[in-house]
Amino acid sequence: MTTLGTRPGTIFGVGLGPGSQDLMSVRADRLIRGATHIAYFRKKGRTGHARTIVEGMLAADAVELPMEYPVTTEIPFDDPRYNAWLAAFYERQVAEIAEIAGAGHDVAVLCEGDPFFYGSFMHLYTRLQGRVAVEVVPGITGMSAAWTATGQPITWGDDVLTVLTATQPEDRLAERIARTDALVVMKIGRHLDKLRRALASAGREGDAWLIEYASMAQQRVVPLAEVGERVPYFSILVIHGNGRRP
Amino acid sequence: MTTLGTRPGTIFGVGLGPGSQDLMSVRADRLIRGATHIAYFRKKGRTGHARTIVEGMLAADAVELPMEYPVTTEIPFDDPRYNAWLAAFYERQVAEIAEIAGAGHDVAVLCEGDPFFYGSFMHLYTRLQGRVAVEVVPGITGMSAAWTATGQPITWGDDVLTVLTATQPEDRLAERIARTDALVVMKIGRHLDKLRRALASAGREGDAWLIEYASMAQQRVVPLAEVGERVPYFSILVIHGNGRRP
Repeated sequence: MTTLGTRPGTIFGVGLGPGSQDLMSVRADRLIRGATHIAYFRKKGRTGHARTIVEGMLAADAVELPMEYPVTTEIPFDDPRYNAWLAAFYERQVAEIAEIAGAGHDVAVLCEGDPFFYGSFMHLYTRLQGRVAVEVVPGITGMSAAWTATGQPITWGDDVLTVLTATQPEDRLAERIARTDALVVMKIGRHLDKLRRALASAGREGDAWLIEYASMAQQRVVPLAEVGERVPYFSILVIHGNGRRP
Repeated sequence: MTTLGTRPGTIFGVGLGPGSQDLMSVRADRLIRGATHIAYFRKKGRTGHARTIVEGMLAADAVELPMEYPVTTEIPFDDPRYNAWLAAFYERQVAEIAEIAGAGHDVAVLCEGDPFFYGSFMHLYTRLQGRVAVEVVPGITGMSAAWTATGQPITWGDDVLTVLTATQPEDRLAERIARTDALVVMKIGRHLDKLRRALASAGREGDAWLIEYASMAQQRVVPLAEVGERVPYFSILVIHGNGRRP
């Protein structure tokens, strides 16, 4: 039995899926429509992609808690200030949402894709451990939407799938790419040229597809050879596996 | 403009997600509740796991089309009869659902997890190309539910994720396991002992978690060291990445 008003709330890390509103899970859909407090990351001065995905779903009186990154791509991530700034930022956000939960409210934190798969929510999650109840709702990953958009299965039979971030050194990329059956590359952005060279030196440039804005209105699927100099932030590269099949 | 009754239907490969009904996407939920024709794979004499997931969701007058495998684990998959039997089976099922679509009905094919990620639907999908309209609805993968169940993020920063099937030779497994940050192993079944040896020789046995029935009522998360001789079919092994984090 709990005393009214003193029972702490739960913080939900809600996977929104790849971007199309109806690719959200039924559980995520219910949580977001019913939420009294909604938190989401965004770049300063922007709406934020997570917030854009849920447009039209929030209750009229829902309290919104935008969490604005103090830094995104302005300084390189290996600058010592990068980690310090981000760590302090995450601590502030955690303090804020933990206080709201402590006052008895649930908080839904919007997470693009799947919260535990290269997600920013993880940085809140680890800091919330032991302070407040946290539940994570998995989501359809951006990569699932990307390979679905290509109209070809990603893995068959015994295929090995490797998921890489393009942020890695070129030789490491090339080595990994040469040795896998199916491939997904995330976080491409300004690493496109390096990724292209790595694919070429692995002899697999011709197998690669680039998917921009998978599952969203602007979705575009192109062979890598036809991709220009720049790709949008929401781009995923895919090479399909080719394994055993009856 | 189409003449009433002659406009062909669409075949939907509907990703059901990992097993919990409310982890289905909103799109999948609508398609399944509204479907007039529902097809799903199952082992002869069983209800079938995909059918079990949607229990209580189907329209009262929905036509059910169970597709019963002629063979599952009775003969090894490298027996030449295996491929021949399965290929003939898929051809029969494709003919049946294509005929239904040709008569103007949509058909929802139930797919556990994500249809293009190690799914059986792919074998229908490739055979349906050029014959009838097919749409694929991605789903939350079993592996997303598995790592969510462990309460720890799977990939951070630049972590490499490798997805393997335990069906592969031991030395190949060991080599892949030694060289990745994060790991997911699917299709464990009777390969558990081999997988354990491969993990041990890669020096990573102590990092491995086994998740049985992720997201379902029977969900169980255990360190590999505490796993017995046998694991259920719905088991996924996970090693978490440990990359850069502020």
